[in-house]
Amino acid sequence: VSTRYLLLAEGFSGDAHYGKTMRGVLRYRREDVVAVLDSTRAGETEEGIPVVGTVADAAPYQPTTALVGVATQGGRFPPEWLAILRDCVEAGIDVENGLHVFLADDPELSALAAARGAELRDLRRPPRDHSTATGANLEVPATIVLTVGSDCAIGKMTVSLELDLEARRRGIRSVFVPTGQTGIAIAGWGIAVDAVVADFIAGAAERLVVEGHARGGELLWVEGQGAILHPVYSGVTLGLYHGSAPHLLVLCHEAGRTEIEGAGGGPHAIPPLGELVRLHEELALPARPARVVAVAVNTRALGEGDARAAVAAAEAETGLPADDPVRFGAARLVDAVLSAREP
Amino acid sequence: VSTRYLLLAEGFSGDAHYGKTMRGVLRYRREDVVAVLDSTRAGETEEGIPVVGTVADAAPYQPTTALVGVATQGGRFPPEWLAILRDCVEAGIDVENGLHVFLADDPELSALAAARGAELRDLRRPPRDHSTATGANLEVPATIVLTVGSDCAIGKMTVSLELDLEARRRGIRSVFVPTGQTGIAIAGWGIAVDAVVADFIAGAAERLVVEGHARGGELLWVEGQGAILHPVYSGVTLGLYHGSAPHLLVLCHEAGRTEIEGAGGGPHAIPPLGELVRLHEELALPARPARVVAVAVNTRALGEGDARAAVAAAEAETGLPADDPVRFGAARLVDAVLSAREP
Repeated sequence: VSTRYLLLAEGFSGDAHYGKTMRGVLRYRREDVVAVLDSTRAGETEEGIPVVGTVADAAPYQPTTALVGVATQGGRFPPEWLAILRDCVEAGIDVENGLHVFLADDPELSALAAARGAELRDLRRPPRDHSTATGANLEVPATIVLTVGSDCAIGKMTVSLELDLEARRRGIRSVFVPTGQTGIAIAGWGIAVDAVVADFIAGAAERLVVEGHARGGELLWVEGQGAILHPVYSGVTLGLYHGSAPHLLVLCHEAGRTEIEGAGGGPHAIPPLGELVRLHEELALPARPARVVAVAVNTRALGEGDARAAVAAAEAETGLPADDPVRFGAARLVDAVLSAREP
Repeated sequence: VSTRYLLLAEGFSGDAHYGKTMRGVLRYRREDVVAVLDSTRAGETEEGIPVVGTVADAAPYQPTTALVGVATQGGRFPPEWLAILRDCVEAGIDVENGLHVFLADDPELSALAAARGAELRDLRRPPRDHSTATGANLEVPATIVLTVGSDCAIGKMTVSLELDLEARRRGIRSVFVPTGQTGIAIAGWGIAVDAVVADFIAGAAERLVVEGHARGGELLWVEGQGAILHPVYSGVTLGLYHGSAPHLLVLCHEAGRTEIEGAGGGPHAIPPLGELVRLHEELALPARPARVVAVAVNTRALGEGDARAAVAAAEAETGLPADDPVRFGAARLVDAVLSAREP
């Protein structure tokens, strides 16, 4: 049976507030989504998909899996959602959850799921046999490309997905390597590297590139996390960088953003792009030098002319090819990666 | 009742192989150590402390607490130790454990401990209410000094402890801030930042500097972890750096070491000290610029003349005051920190 998603978005109405996970699944697995649950918008549609007010109202669409579509900082679970989750499980619908709090650890919900034959899948649950990095990452016979960025939530996952799609269109054995809950929901495999024990970040990243190659990838697009100067998440960023052992980096930036958003104690200024390029290259392991080969500019907030100007400015600032792969297509960035790829 | 330690060192005989935790406690809490357990050396002494072959043989020394004195990479528990741990608990002796595997999670040992009134303290167990960093680190009204280094296990904790001791000798309200199992065993508080969930590394570090100040510190010496270019542990290093929000850094290096040790896939070259100074300063958060103000050189493998030459070479290479605080005293490095301290 293929997955038929009910996206749980209760109380996160409106364009700006829907979660990253929901947006990602709507964009990249839309064919698998049958309904969205949000009682404040029941009867409307979301990108052509019916919005329902209750789990019972979703029944005609025969969902197999409910996906928690929000992702809050720190990953706590909104308590008011538990009733909705119970309704899903009562109806025999599996639940996928990307928050740090694990549904399967709730004894009541777990018992109910067992009784109803529903599965609780916690996408951020680390593998049981986690381990430190071994050096196997340096032996993977594939070109590894990591997206890095000037901040969180500026589109690193999207860039990795778009470049992977474009590479596959060109017939390249290309694999997207998911490192966070949304990427895992989209691709159906992966490890949320922000949820493993800190000593095992690089080990988890290493395992992912090994698996990406085992899945047939000669070109691996590793989903980046955080930012190297992010006051909250930089540890995950650097552990993922060293553990995934990339040959090439694509620097992601949102046009016009000058400060890291959502971190306390700021303002936390974003350095000029040229400095970020240099800093990332200096942070490569001596055993695996990495080069930034392109800049992906997120221009969603801009009009067409300003968007083209922002791309040109990024090129001028870094001397690297730049583009917005969502808006203008991924060809230019894939070209830059392929021409830098080791023979 | 004050702690009377039985150090568990079974099978780790000999100078080179005793664990970091045991060495640290022997050096900085020696007055609390009553015996060492190591059946291969029963009847000998270790730095003047009696070595016993069994838990029963330790009884005359009335230990209150057994400390697991080894620290293996990845933190697994040597299975042959379980019999010794059971003997301790049977005898009503508390057990402190610094490995990633938690004793309290062993149902059998836990039940036995409950029955015998012994406590199982897992030093690496993260706090239950962990959280992401909030920016409170930037508000701590103390001078924060972090030790950073060119590799693991070169003496960052020791340098922090020695500089703290010297500062306290001078009457400064100085506090050592423990971030790993050995530091926690020595100081009796702290969080093992390598054992928290990756998203919470900076949050844990932030909490530690807040607590260090609450404990009366105007000058906080934060125990560093890992190395910024360590292929396995760099994520912990950077999360700790940004989360502890140091004003000043002391760069630690072992004279003569040219490669990171014990990491697979190498060789992993250590860059010149001058480059490490620059890299660390560039990685400071823009909201909290940090300067490297001194270099601590570990010269334990060298004779006196070579040691002095190594210190002089580090000074020449970085243009910063350098010294081996264990061998030659901490005065010079503390002077460097105090003169760089914000007024």
